[in-house]
Amino acid sequence: MSLSMYDASVPVFAKALTVLSTLLDKGEAHAAAHSLAPTELLEARLAPDMYALTRQVQAACDAAKFGSARPAGVTPPSNPDTEATFAELHGRIQATLDFITGIDKAAFNEAAARPVTVKTGGGELNFTGQNYLLGFALPNFFFHIVTAYDILRHKGVEIGKRDFLALG
Amino acid sequence: MSLSMYDASVPVFAKALTVLSTLLDKGEAHAAAHSLAPTELLEARLAPDMYALTRQVQAACDAAKFGSARPAGVTPPSNPDTEATFAELHGRIQATLDFITGIDKAAFNEAAARPVTVKTGGGELNFTGQNYLLGFALPNFFFHIVTAYDILRHKGVEIGKRDFLALG
Repeated sequence: MSLSMYDASVPVFAKALTVLSTLLDKGEAHAAAHSLAPTELLEARLAPDMYALTRQVQAACDAAKFGSARPAGVTPPSNPDTEATFAELHGRIQATLDFITGIDKAAFNEAAARPVTVKTGGGELNFTGQNYLLGFALPNFFFHIVTAYDILRHKGVEIGKRDFLALG
Repeated sequence: MSLSMYDASVPVFAKALTVLSTLLDKGEAHAAAHSLAPTELLEARLAPDMYALTRQVQAACDAAKFGSARPAGVTPPSNPDTEATFAELHGRIQATLDFITGIDKAAFNEAAARPVTVKTGGGELNFTGQNYLLGFALPNFFFHIVTAYDILRHKGVEIGKRDFLALG
């Protein structure tokens, strides 16, 4: 018995993006309750040369978008990373959810063996769809989701592991 | 074409635990180079009520251990969380790697449908092996791996995304 490439990608990304939206809601409520400017959170970062919260959310959306589109062999939309408010980040997350959940499941039938090429600053990386998803896309996606969580937590937002795991 | 439950668990956990060892090595070297006591990093945390680095490493090891053992239907060893030095954390990681990579691959053949029960503070959670792995174990594992990374990064250790993704 085995998993499908679809099961290991789109629903996993979608669940965590939905969590990310909830975390942002809690961040926004925290800022309002403590009379903080939203930018106190949106521009917060854990180290001077790390991405701030806004960019972590954009990167998580990109990771989900490419992590779904590349194994499926479909062309993803372009997103210019112009979001600067909580509302705009929610919009970016929703657009990403709409895109990834709109990919035909059948496009994943041959995804495990599909060649995937990723261009990085260090050159081209060549994967099979399976190695790309498990060895690159999922770790990279969670990197940005968890760092967004960690930034909010570091700034005092009242969130916990149960929120992250969507345990209700 | 599909993935095996084995492919989506043991090698994913093993790769990231090996990365975690490398990150800890860089942390230890950073402490030595800056005349910091190792506990400056090992006891560092991102919020007063979050786990410190040592506990994040222990939790990542537990997440990999249970995330492999439960779907495979095998009983994992007990680990009492007594580590307090970089060397002891490396030992814990190695013990975890030895355990998870030692599980017979055949034990994963029926893993997707195997019932998995997790006891949490909020009660029992019941999953199939597939839903447990994709919806709980992998996100929970990366939560602790990435937060360990974020703590080291926040404390000024010279690590980057390429280290996290093991791009060399």
